[in-house]
Amino acid sequence: MKAPNFNSDLIGSDLHQLSRQLFDRLREDSFDGIGISRETYGPSETVAMELIQETAQRHGLETSWDAAQNLLIRLPGQQPLLPVVATGSHMDSVPHGGNYDGAAGVVAGLIALIAAKNHAPSTRTLELYALRGEESAWFDGPCYFGSRALFGLLGEADLASRHRNDDATLAQKMVACGVDMQPIEQRRAIRQPDDFQAWFELHIEQGPVLIAKESPVGIVTGIRGNIRHRHVICHGQPAHSGAVPRWLRHDAVLAMSELLMRLDEHWRILLAWGEDLVFTTGIVQTDPSEHAVSRVPGQVSFAIEYRSQDKKTLENFSKLLATECEKIGAERGVTFELGDSVSTKPASMSEDLVAVAEQQAKAAGIEYEIMPSGAGHDTAVFANAGIPATMIFVRNDKGSHNPDEHMDMNDFYAGTEVLTRSMIAAANSEEEPDL
Amino acid sequence: MKAPNFNSDLIGSDLHQLSRQLFDRLREDSFDGIGISRETYGPSETVAMELIQETAQRHGLETSWDAAQNLLIRLPGQQPLLPVVATGSHMDSVPHGGNYDGAAGVVAGLIALIAAKNHAPSTRTLELYALRGEESAWFDGPCYFGSRALFGLLGEADLASRHRNDDATLAQKMVACGVDMQPIEQRRAIRQPDDFQAWFELHIEQGPVLIAKESPVGIVTGIRGNIRHRHVICHGQPAHSGAVPRWLRHDAVLAMSELLMRLDEHWRILLAWGEDLVFTTGIVQTDPSEHAVSRVPGQVSFAIEYRSQDKKTLENFSKLLATECEKIGAERGVTFELGDSVSTKPASMSEDLVAVAEQQAKAAGIEYEIMPSGAGHDTAVFANAGIPATMIFVRNDKGSHNPDEHMDMNDFYAGTEVLTRSMIAAANSEEEPDL
Repeated sequence: MKAPNFNSDLIGSDLHQLSRQLFDRLREDSFDGIGISRETYGPSETVAMELIQETAQRHGLETSWDAAQNLLIRLPGQQPLLPVVATGSHMDSVPHGGNYDGAAGVVAGLIALIAAKNHAPSTRTLELYALRGEESAWFDGPCYFGSRALFGLLGEADLASRHRNDDATLAQKMVACGVDMQPIEQRRAIRQPDDFQAWFELHIEQGPVLIAKESPVGIVTGIRGNIRHRHVICHGQPAHSGAVPRWLRHDAVLAMSELLMRLDEHWRILLAWGEDLVFTTGIVQTDPSEHAVSRVPGQVSFAIEYRSQDKKTLENFSKLLATECEKIGAERGVTFELGDSVSTKPASMSEDLVAVAEQQAKAAGIEYEIMPSGAGHDTAVFANAGIPATMIFVRNDKGSHNPDEHMDMNDFYAGTEVLTRSMIAAANSEEEPDL
Repeated sequence: MKAPNFNSDLIGSDLHQLSRQLFDRLREDSFDGIGISRETYGPSETVAMELIQETAQRHGLETSWDAAQNLLIRLPGQQPLLPVVATGSHMDSVPHGGNYDGAAGVVAGLIALIAAKNHAPSTRTLELYALRGEESAWFDGPCYFGSRALFGLLGEADLASRHRNDDATLAQKMVACGVDMQPIEQRRAIRQPDDFQAWFELHIEQGPVLIAKESPVGIVTGIRGNIRHRHVICHGQPAHSGAVPRWLRHDAVLAMSELLMRLDEHWRILLAWGEDLVFTTGIVQTDPSEHAVSRVPGQVSFAIEYRSQDKKTLENFSKLLATECEKIGAERGVTFELGDSVSTKPASMSEDLVAVAEQQAKAAGIEYEIMPSGAGHDTAVFANAGIPATMIFVRNDKGSHNPDEHMDMNDFYAGTEVLTRSMIAAANSEEEPDL
């Protein structure tokens, strides 16, 4: 369903208009001829953050830049020594990306703080972070630079990673943005997890679930971790495709196909069993220096990635993969070399905060879906630091990381309403949310 | 089992020694530093043919070069006007190939004619062809140049095909070997099918069946034809590998895997049903400009080839392929584009000649397998011209088209014995063999 274009008691048409103006200015400032480019620790990211800062100051909010040059905006509460209720998202985009991936969460947070200020004083302080450098595209691989810097988590490899265009290191780009590198290199934390009562992040959905379910808003129960085998090789035996009968073949491509079909079937059953899982083979290649139409393939290489909100599911699927490789290997006379794997941990959202968000969505009459986040987000850094957290997804057509990314503004208003109400509720709650 | 190192009444140790000397000379003359290179319509092919000619002349056989510069060796029969009993194989090799692919059949044929001459006069004339240009490797694609020229079957496209090294056309290479191109271009046949009573070809097996079955010799019932789809594309829909759940995916690689597994299962059942079939996907590739470990693959391209001795089996498998593509397409929301296909016709061997060869193998106490030929051979040209034909395979380790190709000489003697006895029997038979 389409979200109703409501003006709530909290957020009226003036704030809706402000959010539209901000998105228009952001688009104008960072249009690159094809899409949107707001570069990780780059000038276009800074310009966007300065727009947020000016707007916040104009509406009477406190603003400052932290030691990693993230922008922090504050609405002090009545009890300023209590842990704060915070929100935020990232200001950077991928090259030729869309206007909303990241920025939607910053603009929504700004609207939330202004609305809260206009509404009534809260017990706890409200904070908004416009974070730098969430995307992995600019420095080919590592990501979450701004949020990880908050907790002293940037390592040497991160700081030495090279920019895709000019080969400068991340550290050099950070210095150019005014960062004093000494405390960063010493891994000095800017904030302690105990500073935070709750963390919320509004973000456009990067998949099609909300479109398919016809819901404007998603409330996120966990961020999937993943295990990636980038370069699996199946070794069979090359042979003449005409002269070798079936019983003497060790066909690498058929063995791989059988493995993928078995994993696909396990996936289907695990979903029916209630597990959270996605499984992908995005790359498949026989060796161009060896392969031929009339040659039984002796080798094929492929990638395997699986993601789940549940660490146990990842571990079990990993065992299943190894078992199936061994079984098919024995049956077909091939061997699978799984190669190195890299993994990222899943992040669990706080059940209490999910319940708060659900309650507020219901109270506002906004339809929502309970769902996992398949993509990674800064929120994973906060959650894995031990801060109760959740995310609010906004329906988004045509995927993310491309100029065609599309968010309906009514859906954005609905998501911002849920975010604002949830933050105010958390800021005035007596109880501490559990992870 | 190992073939016994017998000296038969027909072929004694002197002729065994001659065949060893011929193989040694051939190897010496055409060693290229890595393997054997006897170039299609090239000087190294001619050198090898001249060695065969000299040896034949020394043993009192008639020799001549035909209009396509194939070498013809004859042992006139008592009734020279009757259709002849002929054998032969090709003199060329692939680049960096082995010494026996082709040459074994020519040497065996020469031994057969000498043995027949020493034995007793035959009713019919015996002939041996040392054919040129069977391999497709030198002119990338077309093949059987020498045998097709016999029946006026070389077309413009054949003659215009380019050499892999120096870009010369086949026609230019033929002229350099002394061919008068006018009759070739006019597609004038050098021989008529009715000239031949029977055609035999001895050849090393290019697969591992005789090794696995522990038989020195194979008798061939048919040469598989094939259908090739060189570039099948499965179109799915690219998507974020974390953010898109199973029910919203259209994964091209999983769809392809399902297709290959279904075809593999059909193959298994068709073999149990007694059909002759091999099925291969030798090439698989996702698009390097699009694919990624964390992207549901929107496209994959792959090759499909299937071969059978039976035209009907090829046609039925073709229909099965189309049906499965449609079914999986509907179930998984993908489409398969099968693209152009190229096909070659199967060639049936003469049941009568297969029976003759079996009878002679039994009489000589030589173990044999009845089997199809999966690879193509000059014999297919003779058979498809309407000449009763069969092939005798000799066990061969390590495949063909490589320097490690290995034929045990005792196996060669066994195959040559079957060839010689079969030719003599056919040359003295009253009955005409059926196809």
